[in-house]
Amino acid sequence: MEKSAVFHRPGDNFSYLIEDRTIQIRLKTKKSNIKSVKLIIGDPYIWEDGEWQFSELPMTLVSKDDLFDYWEVDVFVETRRLRYGFKLASVDEEAIFTEKGFFNTAPVDSDYYFCFPYLHKQEIFNAPDWVKDTVWYQIFPERFANGDPSINPKNVRQWNSEPPAINNFFGGDFTGITENLEHLTDIGVNGIYLTPVFKAFSNHKYDTIDYMEIDPQFGDSESLKKLISECHNRGIRVMLDAVFNHSGYYFPPFQDVIKNGENSPYKDWFHIHDFPVQGGQKPNYEAFAFVDSMPKLNTANPEVKKYLLDVGMYWIKEFDIDGWRLDVANEVDHEFWREFRTAVKEVKKDVYILGEIWHDSMPWLRGDQFDGVMNYPFKTNVLNLLAKNNITSIQFMENISKVYYSYPKNIFDYTFNLVGSHDTPRILTECNDDINRTKQVYTILLTFMGSPCIYYGDEIGMTGDLDPGCRKCMDWNTENHDSELKEHIRALISLRKKEKLLANDGSVRFLFPEVENGIFGYRKFNNNKSVIILLNPSITKQAFPLEKHINYQVLYSSEIEMEPSEINLGPDGFCILSYSH
Amino acid sequence: MEKSAVFHRPGDNFSYLIEDRTIQIRLKTKKSNIKSVKLIIGDPYIWEDGEWQFSELPMTLVSKDDLFDYWEVDVFVETRRLRYGFKLASVDEEAIFTEKGFFNTAPVDSDYYFCFPYLHKQEIFNAPDWVKDTVWYQIFPERFANGDPSINPKNVRQWNSEPPAINNFFGGDFTGITENLEHLTDIGVNGIYLTPVFKAFSNHKYDTIDYMEIDPQFGDSESLKKLISECHNRGIRVMLDAVFNHSGYYFPPFQDVIKNGENSPYKDWFHIHDFPVQGGQKPNYEAFAFVDSMPKLNTANPEVKKYLLDVGMYWIKEFDIDGWRLDVANEVDHEFWREFRTAVKEVKKDVYILGEIWHDSMPWLRGDQFDGVMNYPFKTNVLNLLAKNNITSIQFMENISKVYYSYPKNIFDYTFNLVGSHDTPRILTECNDDINRTKQVYTILLTFMGSPCIYYGDEIGMTGDLDPGCRKCMDWNTENHDSELKEHIRALISLRKKEKLLANDGSVRFLFPEVENGIFGYRKFNNNKSVIILLNPSITKQAFPLEKHINYQVLYSSEIEMEPSEINLGPDGFCILSYSH
Repeated sequence: MEKSAVFHRPGDNFSYLIEDRTIQIRLKTKKSNIKSVKLIIGDPYIWEDGEWQFSELPMTLVSKDDLFDYWEVDVFVETRRLRYGFKLASVDEEAIFTEKGFFNTAPVDSDYYFCFPYLHKQEIFNAPDWVKDTVWYQIFPERFANGDPSINPKNVRQWNSEPPAINNFFGGDFTGITENLEHLTDIGVNGIYLTPVFKAFSNHKYDTIDYMEIDPQFGDSESLKKLISECHNRGIRVMLDAVFNHSGYYFPPFQDVIKNGENSPYKDWFHIHDFPVQGGQKPNYEAFAFVDSMPKLNTANPEVKKYLLDVGMYWIKEFDIDGWRLDVANEVDHEFWREFRTAVKEVKKDVYILGEIWHDSMPWLRGDQFDGVMNYPFKTNVLNLLAKNNITSIQFMENISKVYYSYPKNIFDYTFNLVGSHDTPRILTECNDDINRTKQVYTILLTFMGSPCIYYGDEIGMTGDLDPGCRKCMDWNTENHDSELKEHIRALISLRKKEKLLANDGSVRFLFPEVENGIFGYRKFNNNKSVIILLNPSITKQAFPLEKHINYQVLYSSEIEMEPSEINLGPDGFCILSYSH
Repeated sequence: MEKSAVFHRPGDNFSYLIEDRTIQIRLKTKKSNIKSVKLIIGDPYIWEDGEWQFSELPMTLVSKDDLFDYWEVDVFVETRRLRYGFKLASVDEEAIFTEKGFFNTAPVDSDYYFCFPYLHKQEIFNAPDWVKDTVWYQIFPERFANGDPSINPKNVRQWNSEPPAINNFFGGDFTGITENLEHLTDIGVNGIYLTPVFKAFSNHKYDTIDYMEIDPQFGDSESLKKLISECHNRGIRVMLDAVFNHSGYYFPPFQDVIKNGENSPYKDWFHIHDFPVQGGQKPNYEAFAFVDSMPKLNTANPEVKKYLLDVGMYWIKEFDIDGWRLDVANEVDHEFWREFRTAVKEVKKDVYILGEIWHDSMPWLRGDQFDGVMNYPFKTNVLNLLAKNNITSIQFMENISKVYYSYPKNIFDYTFNLVGSHDTPRILTECNDDINRTKQVYTILLTFMGSPCIYYGDEIGMTGDLDPGCRKCMDWNTENHDSELKEHIRALISLRKKEKLLANDGSVRFLFPEVENGIFGYRKFNNNKSVIILLNPSITKQAFPLEKHINYQVLYSSEIEMEPSEINLGPDGFCILSYSH
C-alpha cells in the first residue's frame, strides 16, 4: 500500500456540506493502488464500555487522473457531529487512515479520527440558484451593435469596414444591444456578461476613469436602465465587469497624485514607491502587469475600500444588475472581497459574484467571498483535446477529473465555463475552422457542470485571432451566419432547459475511453434518471459500450448507429442519451 | 520517484506571508525519496522572447515524519507577484512539479505554475505580539484561593478539608487570586487564564446562567476589576473563558422556552426539535455532547449573535480583559467567529482570541477568525513520550514534525501549549510522580514554539487524577511544595524571558535522535544565534554529537558531561545550549 499517497484533509474539496444534514467526503489514493475503501463514522460522544461506537460505509471509486484515484461517499449525519476515518484495502494489506496517521486496527478513541465538528445548515455553499440555469453571452459593447450613432466616439469607423485594431472605435452601444436582444432569446441565452461599461480611455474600458459614470460612447443611465429592464422582461440576467484591482491612468485620484505627489490626498489610494510618479516600462508604482496605465488600487486603505464598496452597491441598487464579474480578482486581498460580499448581498441577496482567477481558486470559494470563478482549466483542456489535438481523450478525462475533484461538487456547479473571450482567439479559429470540432466544443460547454458562456459572434461562426482579431464587429448580415452552428447551439441550450440534469441538477461520473483516444464522456444523474454525453474525438468511427438491459433514448446526436450493446459515433461525432432508473 | 506522494497546494501551511515581501514555501515528499528540490520562481508578467523568465532557489529538507520529508524555503518577492514550481531530483529521475502536474522540462508559460497572486502586507498573520512573550497560568477559580469568606456559596467546605467532588464547593474567589498574585510573579508567570466566571450553576461554571453577570461566589464587578488592574500593574494579562457553543440549563432564555414552548420569543435561540422541551439521556434539542444541561445556542440567529457579540465586547470594554478562550470553538459556525473577531478587535486591537479545538484547526487560523488554538496534539505527544512511555523519541520527533508543519510557522508561534488542565490528570500524576520526567515535560513546554500554560498547582507538585481529582484546592502550605520543581519552572521562565529565541523569535529545526529512543531536541535560531534544547528520554546515560568548531554555552541543564565532539546527558537529563553564528 502506498500510504504516502493517501490524502485527506477535512474541509475544502475533501469534506463539505451538500444538504442540511448530509456531507460529502472524498479521499485521494495512488492510482490503482487501493482495492476498496470503507468510511468509519460515528458521533464523537457516543461510547459504550469505554469504546467509541462507529459504523462503516463503503466509498465509491468515482474517478482518476494521471496519478490518483478519487473516492467519494455521501454521509447523512443524524446528530450533526462526525468523526471519521478510512479503512483501506490494497492487494496485500489493510490499514485504517486517521488524522493521527495509519493503524492496523481501528482506534477505540474518537479523538484519533478526522473531525467534521458540526453541520451548520448556513454553511452549505450559498450561491444564487439561477446561475445553474443560466447560459451566458459575453458582449464586448464597443463591437456588438451601434444603435445610437448620435453618441458615436470621435473618429468612429463604419461598422465592420476595417479590422479591429488596438485603438479604433466602431461605436457599439447599449441601444445596439437592446435592439438585438431577440438574437439572444432566439438562441436561448438568458444571461449577458458585459465587459466594462464605465467611463474609460480605451475601447476595452478596462482602464477606468470613473466607476460611477457610464462611458458616453455606450449611452447614459437611461439607456443602460432600458437595456437592463428589457433584459429582465425577457428573463435575461445582466452581469457587469468590476475592475477593482487597478484604476485607469486618467482616474482623477491618480491624476491628482501625478500632479500633487506626496501632497495629494490620494497618495495612499495607490502603491507609490517614490515621488514624483513616473510611468514608462518600469513604473515607480504598483501596476497591473507593470502596465503604467493601470495603477494598482490600495484596497487596504479604508477610503478606497469605501469607494469601491459603494461602487459595488450603487450599480445594483440603481440599475438592478444581477452579477459582478471581478477582474484580476486574485490580486486583491481576501478581506476586501469578504466585505464586498457582505455589502452587495445585502443590497441583492442573489447577486452572482464571479472572480477572474486562472489558477487554483479554493481560497476564494469557501463561502465568504465568491460564488464562482472563471473556469480557465476547463477551456484549456477542451481546446487541447478538440482544437489543438495535443492531448488524448484519456488525458482529457484525467485532467478534467483533477480539476473537478479540486473543488466541492456544489461549488463546481456555479463555475463559469468558457471556451473563448475578448482575450483569446475565437473558438472556430482555434478549431482551424473545423465546424464539427467546434460543434463538439459546444456540446461539452453546454452540457458540462457549471454555467456556460458564449462569446458574442462565436455562435454565428465568426473567426478571429488573438486580440485585436477576436474583437471584430458583430456581423449582422445573416447570410454570413453559419446556420449549422447556430442551430446546434440553439438545440443544446433548448435541451439544457428541458433536461434539468444537464443544468447541474444532479451528480456526475466521468466516462473514460476504453481505448487510447476513444469515445469519452460523462453521465449526469439523480435518483430517477441518467443523461449521458458522449464524444468521439478521433477521425474514425468508434464504438462505446452500452448496457443491454437499459432502454436508452437519444436526446440529440450527430449520425450514430445504436446496437443493443454499443453505440457507434462517426468521426467527430457526439451524442446525448438518457435513461430512467 | 514517488510522484503520487509529492504534495503542495498554495495557501495554508504550504505558502504564506512571513514578512512584508517574503513568503515561506513548503513541499511534502515521500520520506527519503527525493534527493534535492529547487524552487522555480518568477513574476508572471516578466517574459522575454515568448518565454517566461524564472530563477531557481534551493529548498532545505527541514524535517520528516513517519511517511514524509518536509522542504522549505523563504522567498523574497520584489514585485509582490509570484509563480513557482518545484524541480525535484530522486536517485533515478528529475521532474518539474507544477499546478498542472509533472513535466520533464520546465514549461515556458507561467500559467502552468503554482500561483501566489499578490503579497498583501495586511495578510501577514496578525496575532497580538505579546502572546509570544507570555507564560500562562490556568486558574480554576473555585479552587485557587478563598479570599473573601463573606461570599462563600452555600454548604462551602473548609479549604482542602476533603477531596474535590463533582458537586462540592470550597469558596475560591477573585480576592483570593488578587491576594496571591505574588506567587505568580515569583514563578515568572505573566498571563492568567480563568475558566468561566459568569453566573452559573455548577462549580466549573461551564453551564452559564447569565453571560453579563459575575458569579456571586467569585465576587462582583469591583473585585474582578481590582483583580484585573492588579494583574496589569504586574504585567500580567488576563484571559476569560467564553462558552458560546451552549448555554446552561438555567439560562433565562432556555427556561423561557421550557416554560412557554413554541410561544417563547426565545424558541429560535436554540435548536429545539419538538415541543415541549424534554431533557434526559436523549434531549429533544441539540446539546453539547448530548448533555441536557448544556443546550446548544443557535449562533445563526441574529438575536443570539448580537447578544453574544455584545458579551464579547462588554468584558473587554468594561473590564479591560486581554483575551478570550473560546470553549468548544469548532462546533460554532465560522461566520459567527468572523464577526466575533471584527467586533472584539475593534474594542481592543491586541486582544488574544484562542479557540478550543482538539483536531486539525487550519480552517479557523486563516487570519479571519482565531489567533491561536489550544495545542492538544502537543500535550498528547509530550505525555506519550515522557509520561506514558508508549512512543520513542524518534516517533515523538516525527509526530511533532507532522503537527508543526501542518500550520504556517507564524501561526504556530501563537499556539497555546498545555500539558494538563481541569479536564485531565495532573502532569505529576501522569508521570507516575517521577519528578525528573515532570521536569523534562516543563523543559519542553517552556522552550517550545507557542505560548505555554501551567495548570494551577502543577508548579508546586500537586497531584490528582481525572476530574474531579485534578481540581483539588490549591495547597498554600509551602512545606508541601516541591521546591525542586518550582525552582526548575522558575529557572526556565526566567531563561525564556532573557533569551528571546526561546520565546518564538526565530526559526526552528527538529533534532532527531541518532539511535532508537536516543537524545532528541530542537534548535531555535535567528541570523546571529542558535539555542539548542536537548532531552534524554531514556534511563541510561546517552551522548549527542556536537560540532567541534562551535563554542557552546550551557544556559541550563541537569548533570551533563561536555566533550569537544559530544555532550552526555544522564538518565532523564535535559540541557539548553546556545552559540553565536
